Amino acid sequence: MYTLYSMQRSGNCYKVRLALAHLGIPHRLVEVDILKGETRTPEFLAMNPSGRVPLLEVAPGRYLPESNAILWYIAGGTPLAPEDRIDRAEALQWMFFEQHSLEPNLGAARFWLTMVRGGRELQHHAIEDWMEKGYQALGIMEQHLAERDFFSAGRYTVADIALYAYTHCAPESGFALDAFPAIRAWLARVAAQAGHVPMDGLPAVATAD
Amino acid sequence: MYTLYSMQRSGNCYKVRLALAHLGIPHRLVEVDILKGETRTPEFLAMNPSGRVPLLEVAPGRYLPESNAILWYIAGGTPLAPEDRIDRAEALQWMFFEQHSLEPNLGAARFWLTMVRGGRELQHHAIEDWMEKGYQALGIMEQHLAERDFFSAGRYTVADIALYAYTHCAPESGFALDAFPAIRAWLARVAAQAGHVPMDGLPAVATAD
Repeated sequence: MYTLYSMQRSGNCYKVRLALAHLGIPHRLVEVDILKGETRTPEFLAMNPSGRVPLLEVAPGRYLPESNAILWYIAGGTPLAPEDRIDRAEALQWMFFEQHSLEPNLGAARFWLTMVRGGRELQHHAIEDWMEKGYQALGIMEQHLAERDFFSAGRYTVADIALYAYTHCAPESGFALDAFPAIRAWLARVAAQAGHVPMDGLPAVATAD
Repeated sequence: MYTLYSMQRSGNCYKVRLALAHLGIPHRLVEVDILKGETRTPEFLAMNPSGRVPLLEVAPGRYLPESNAILWYIAGGTPLAPEDRIDRAEALQWMFFEQHSLEPNLGAARFWLTMVRGGRELQHHAIEDWMEKGYQALGIMEQHLAERDFFSAGRYTVADIALYAYTHCAPESGFALDAFPAIRAWLARVAAQAGHVPMDGLPAVATAD
């Protein structure tokens, strides 16, 4: 059984919990508090030198970090992971977009504004910069979704899960989605998928262990 | 035949040129100058709303952006693209790491310090921040390579190509690699691969068109 090291309020961790729930994969959940330094202990760094969650133990002693890589691993062989060459490339396209254009802006704004509420990072990076670049990313997503139901392969895939995590909670950090009707319709389509769990809900199939 | 929209001095574009050269795939190369705004024209934005290079025309009128997604597309079915489930996930792990921990620091430092030499971005982001986070990323790579020849699957893959692009030219933007012997040995191993081309060299198989 997989063990997932995860922080409940992290969007990157939510991606993995959402995919596990959608696929009905039993797993053991270990809550890790980033804000208490629990990813910087020698024990955690021995499992993941990057000191980040999510982290999936795929086999005893073998650990896979990086939310989007974990998505591909657990979804392998299911409809969530498109294997056609161009479909796969386009799903990856949006997942790399998510990691460099969406998450660093929406995710950073959420983390520093709603969770840490201050600190050094807020001095180094202007909030206006996150907002401007975050809205640019949302604009590109809106344009793509105006003509499509999902991001790639014409169906719900790991790309949708990756992009959903920080987009659905964007209003929490001050991003207004009023001007993005296609994104709002897509958020509703994702939330209507079988096995969907909310970010703050417990995965239906997680074991207590 | 593929058409690659690329800027010679861009590390992200170099990844794609390197993979095409290694695989001996003929292609048409269109040089695009980011600094002259050539990715912000209506014509270019119609091909890629993100306004970025590299961009690969995979079929007439069908465009694939995102360097690391392009790598998976062109390498599909070759040894460069590991298809085993855990090997693929670990290659992806390092490619997502590259896009959020390496490229935003080494790539940004290179772009703003050696190419633009100033501007708004240098006010918003402290150079010390790029250096600190860039060295952290290099430290994680060094630790991984201390026990391995390549990043995943025990061989040269798209993950190595992705990480090589900005690492091999890190000294240009002030990153010293003296303290990273495993990285330096890996850089030499990558440069020794068949079909390797330097960043400033012309791809051996590109057509003049």
